[in-house]
Amino acid sequence: MMKIVIIGAVAAGTSAAAKARRNDEEAQIIIFEKDVDISYSGCGLPYYIGGIVKRRDEIVPRNTDYFKRKYNVDIFTRREVLNIDALGKKLTVKNLITDEVFLEDFDKLVIATGASAVVPNIPGVDKSNVFYLRNVQSADRIKDFINKNNPKKAVIVGSGFIGLEMTENLKELGIDVTIVELAPQVMPAMDKDMALYIEKYLIEKDINLVLADSVAAIEGEFPSTKVILSSGNKIETDFVIVAVGIKPNIKLAQNAGIEIGETGAIKVNKKMLTSTKYIYACGDCAESYSCLTGQNMYRPLGSTANKTGRIVGESLNGGSLEFRGILGTGIFKVFDKVIAYTGLSEKEALKEGYEIVICHNIKPDKAMYYGGQEMIIKGVADKNTGRLLGIQIVGTSGVDKRIDVFVTAITFGAKAEDLSHLDLAYAPPFSTAKDPVMYTGMILENEINRDKNK
Amino acid sequence: MMKIVIIGAVAAGTSAAAKARRNDEEAQIIIFEKDVDISYSGCGLPYYIGGIVKRRDEIVPRNTDYFKRKYNVDIFTRREVLNIDALGKKLTVKNLITDEVFLEDFDKLVIATGASAVVPNIPGVDKSNVFYLRNVQSADRIKDFINKNNPKKAVIVGSGFIGLEMTENLKELGIDVTIVELAPQVMPAMDKDMALYIEKYLIEKDINLVLADSVAAIEGEFPSTKVILSSGNKIETDFVIVAVGIKPNIKLAQNAGIEIGETGAIKVNKKMLTSTKYIYACGDCAESYSCLTGQNMYRPLGSTANKTGRIVGESLNGGSLEFRGILGTGIFKVFDKVIAYTGLSEKEALKEGYEIVICHNIKPDKAMYYGGQEMIIKGVADKNTGRLLGIQIVGTSGVDKRIDVFVTAITFGAKAEDLSHLDLAYAPPFSTAKDPVMYTGMILENEINRDKNK
Repeated sequence: MMKIVIIGAVAAGTSAAAKARRNDEEAQIIIFEKDVDISYSGCGLPYYIGGIVKRRDEIVPRNTDYFKRKYNVDIFTRREVLNIDALGKKLTVKNLITDEVFLEDFDKLVIATGASAVVPNIPGVDKSNVFYLRNVQSADRIKDFINKNNPKKAVIVGSGFIGLEMTENLKELGIDVTIVELAPQVMPAMDKDMALYIEKYLIEKDINLVLADSVAAIEGEFPSTKVILSSGNKIETDFVIVAVGIKPNIKLAQNAGIEIGETGAIKVNKKMLTSTKYIYACGDCAESYSCLTGQNMYRPLGSTANKTGRIVGESLNGGSLEFRGILGTGIFKVFDKVIAYTGLSEKEALKEGYEIVICHNIKPDKAMYYGGQEMIIKGVADKNTGRLLGIQIVGTSGVDKRIDVFVTAITFGAKAEDLSHLDLAYAPPFSTAKDPVMYTGMILENEINRDKNK
Repeated sequence: MMKIVIIGAVAAGTSAAAKARRNDEEAQIIIFEKDVDISYSGCGLPYYIGGIVKRRDEIVPRNTDYFKRKYNVDIFTRREVLNIDALGKKLTVKNLITDEVFLEDFDKLVIATGASAVVPNIPGVDKSNVFYLRNVQSADRIKDFINKNNPKKAVIVGSGFIGLEMTENLKELGIDVTIVELAPQVMPAMDKDMALYIEKYLIEKDINLVLADSVAAIEGEFPSTKVILSSGNKIETDFVIVAVGIKPNIKLAQNAGIEIGETGAIKVNKKMLTSTKYIYACGDCAESYSCLTGQNMYRPLGSTANKTGRIVGESLNGGSLEFRGILGTGIFKVFDKVIAYTGLSEKEALKEGYEIVICHNIKPDKAMYYGGQEMIIKGVADKNTGRLLGIQIVGTSGVDKRIDVFVTAITFGAKAEDLSHLDLAYAPPFSTAKDPVMYTGMILENEINRDKNK
């Protein structure tokens, strides 16, 4: 009987366990989780803080009993793995409740240690009114602070999707929000021209934007906290949320001699196997790769954690399932706007050395007489092959549909000219007779042909 | 200078004209249209009758001036083409306003004569309170009847998407609706098991369903009209809408010796050329084909009319664009339910001789804590190749997204096993970490593997 030990019981670890159990009824499967919560929806935390999600158990719907009952998987929470003895196939584990330290052996090990918020190295980041959003407890702390202190002003450091989701949720609670972003634009992952639409909208929603500046220090305790910027400007605030990115938790793996990839995450092959042949890694601690360029990437997301966890579950039992990489798809809403992207941005495509054409296509998501609302689609295609490389969309409704159609098309190697032929579903409440996806393909195709005819 | 004459100025004819003009600034382009309205949204007519679309010009946004100004295309309405002299390259045209008959020559001809409602051969179908929905004037007539007579009861004959869209729109006007359907299920294009969900829902919405029965006669004038069914049952009603299908308008082409396809529509090649080498056909009068099976099909829809019109526009100028066929995608809403389908149903796949696996997958469209609502996805895949063949969905929100992702995947030849690898956009307001599309792929894959292991 194989003994599988998994470190981490959030998305990837529990996916791996569930899939491993489906493939092998006999194996012993154990998960150690440092945290108190398991299998929670990290992506739902901004909405839990904002009160759209009413109950904590909606974000943490499953407990250890559920996994025992449904999958015969033993999950032990508050157990921190201190060390991996890769050669001896043993873990040193600390029971954080009793402080007891014990050894646990394994036949196969799965590292699903996730990622942590990046903590900038500046004075004041450890103050009690400076928060990071990562696990449910970190969300509880923000919620508690808001409930107890009824704050009026917040500074959010970072304008990636978590920063912007938090912006919406805090503003909806009546809190005045200032965003501080190091880059000269919000959403640095997107092209500047698309970020401008988001910036304009945030200003309309009375969000204070401080771009091309950074936090030098945080001074004073609540209620007299000041954020000191590198520019010398100061912002009075009641609390600060730092959302400047997350980094993979690789220390355990690194100490065990497991290879770390160029992106800083744990290097894995397509079966999610690490450099040690009976140790797997999945989820936010593992390196990913682009199915478009083949390049290694680090884009930790819940959807990818689920995928890679499932692949580990297969691999543990000798399955042939392989990870096919990601496109780097993302989507989020901020108030009534929806922002989505997949594949390469213009700047990324140029950096990769592609000769490209681009288009900006403004079209309603459905028939105007049925309440259609315009979205802006930026498309990037390879000038030489015609291949679609990337899409960025800013819109209101129907953005999630278009990005997923583009994702699917790009995954299958679609050329710009393929899009206008798609037999997409048309009825006035859902789209236009020529869908925005099709127009995007037609415009890119025209750009390519124009360039060829020069 | 080439002289292009087009018969028909709705979706296909005007698309052909616009594209032809973009490719050739010199050509003379003329369109003859029998109707008074041009370039209207046929798919929007049920919502015009229901009052969701407030103004007639929202459905008919462009007039002949627009086409003259923007494309230098001359559109003559109320001009009926009586005859095509294919060899002599001449049309006989009647001016329906003056009754004058004249000849018009052409270099290239485009037949975009559309389709007509099927009129059953039963007594009473010509009564003034029996309606068909096809062009804007037919919608005007229904609207006028309702406004003048304030009817309380309607019988809709046929339960395809037009019948069901009319059901919603009449019911929302406070009219009691009875649907009479010849088949033993609603939406005969779909599988019975999926139609059952729709039937259950229609009954919940207080729609009277009469299945496996047909209209034998319509007796009496308003307000004492009775629909006599083949079963002998009688339904008292204020008016009747007949929506039992549409048939291509092929008479002109047929009389000119142009070949008609096996489906009864005008036979065309991939450049939309008919059997006569300078005469093209596009839109609802032309035959289509399945990009899945290669078989000829007749599925007249506005989206396809736009596509085939555009291809004609290219072909007229010697372009290489070819029609790639359709999947037979459809979508419509009835009250709060959305129904969509693409590719082959189970019954169609079996008829085509495929060995198949199927699945029924019930999943929420987004995170439950963000208001997710379940949809039922029926998937059909080829047991031997794993290829995805068809999808049917009944749900509430997010159905249009999933069907379009499936359309794109099927178009590119996706296998069931490909779906779980898609890097679809995930955030709680839009989807679940494993999207319903991915689950569908996984379940079909399991079915295929189970069958293999038998």
